[in-house]
Amino acid sequence: MRYRIDLEYDGTDFWGWQIQPGSRTVQGEVEAVLSRVLGGPVPVTGAGRTDRGCHAAGQVAHFDHDRPRPLKDLARALAALLPEDIRLRALTEAPAGFHARYSATRRAYRYLIARRRSAFTRRLMWQLGERLDLKSLRAASACLAGEHDFRGFAVALEETTGSGRCRVERADWDAAGGGYRFTIVADRFLTRMVRLLVGSLVEVGRGRLDPAAVGERLRRPSHDSRPAAAPAVGLCLAWVRYDGVNEVNGG
Amino acid sequence: MRYRIDLEYDGTDFWGWQIQPGSRTVQGEVEAVLSRVLGGPVPVTGAGRTDRGCHAAGQVAHFDHDRPRPLKDLARALAALLPEDIRLRALTEAPAGFHARYSATRRAYRYLIARRRSAFTRRLMWQLGERLDLKSLRAASACLAGEHDFRGFAVALEETTGSGRCRVERADWDAAGGGYRFTIVADRFLTRMVRLLVGSLVEVGRGRLDPAAVGERLRRPSHDSRPAAAPAVGLCLAWVRYDGVNEVNGG
Repeated sequence: MRYRIDLEYDGTDFWGWQIQPGSRTVQGEVEAVLSRVLGGPVPVTGAGRTDRGCHAAGQVAHFDHDRPRPLKDLARALAALLPEDIRLRALTEAPAGFHARYSATRRAYRYLIARRRSAFTRRLMWQLGERLDLKSLRAASACLAGEHDFRGFAVALEETTGSGRCRVERADWDAAGGGYRFTIVADRFLTRMVRLLVGSLVEVGRGRLDPAAVGERLRRPSHDSRPAAAPAVGLCLAWVRYDGVNEVNGG
Repeated sequence: MRYRIDLEYDGTDFWGWQIQPGSRTVQGEVEAVLSRVLGGPVPVTGAGRTDRGCHAAGQVAHFDHDRPRPLKDLARALAALLPEDIRLRALTEAPAGFHARYSATRRAYRYLIARRRSAFTRRLMWQLGERLDLKSLRAASACLAGEHDFRGFAVALEETTGSGRCRVERADWDAAGGGYRFTIVADRFLTRMVRLLVGSLVEVGRGRLDPAAVGERLRRPSHDSRPAAAPAVGLCLAWVRYDGVNEVNGG
């Protein structure tokens, strides 16, 4: 039987999602707790591999187990044993054929930037400590919606195997929590894509980069004089959607 | 010359404000940084001693130093050297006769309660994970405004030296950030008073305690069958006011 598990985590004290011997990772912690509860190794597959220091409000994962237990009991045991920086949001029976990664049809990320540095937001927002021009941020982001080749905003042109095409459904900015929030929804994301986009967009919001430069890099993927990626701390996997599968809103 | 220093801190990883040998405290960290910058010991006096694990958005402190330096330089050095869970909000020249503790005329605390447990709010909100009845919370808090003897909401009747009287200017609840926020403004607070009040009020909000019980304990201070204090994690010293002194709003 396949289980679907919906998780929220504060990624600050993790070396990302993916299991690595000797490092504290989200997948590692979840597998350790499941193994303890179910007795024996339980591999877990996540919808997306969040980077070191990145967060998730709605990460989705699945695991298989043959001796079913009442869902409520299992959920209670997991919730009690997971460390406090990982929160179990839901545990459900996965529908037939469900795969946390391959069945995902849409994902949303948000990126938070603090206008004023704060002891309270330092774990969840990029402590930029500057005002940005929201109008420029929006103008520069308008070109992102639609289907484009995003290899210019991937970790390395040559590392992007296969297509660099992503279908962006939404990409916009709003003022939120004493700062700025970028929300992007797409069918898929390339490695480091959101942080690289935010890195460039912030340069636009600071008035240091022409808004047209973002669209230009979509039309002609290149890494020439590209602004640095925004730091991990501000990035959060907001939710993952599956067509026809009942969902938990991580938004 | 006397300096006024306005601070914000995430109290999670501190053993409270007050300096204690061998423990990480806010006062200890601030004094260490000041001593390093100014060369020699610099005692710091805070407006209030926050408990272990409690936060401050607007703690105020003062220190004296004889060889004045440009405020901007000093502020920059402090901001750069303070640990990231303490944030310098302002450094100013204190007016004549200013004392961070004795000149304070009003203080505000807020207490945050999470309706849903969350990996993101666990350091700043009490992870109650329950719905409370906001109407009952408000009804039970209505009696707090005015001048009352709060020894029934102090750490121990006999430990409250002198008067237990506090003049409460405002005490109310609102829904905030996926939970409930209690705000209380008064001329002074007894030890553990806000946490003890919240502990009782939450029992009212859960329907387990008659709202009238709170007013009853004000009229007849007693610790009999008193609900436990709410945990430190939700408490934040929001601001401190000084009559006639220019201020930084920590709210």
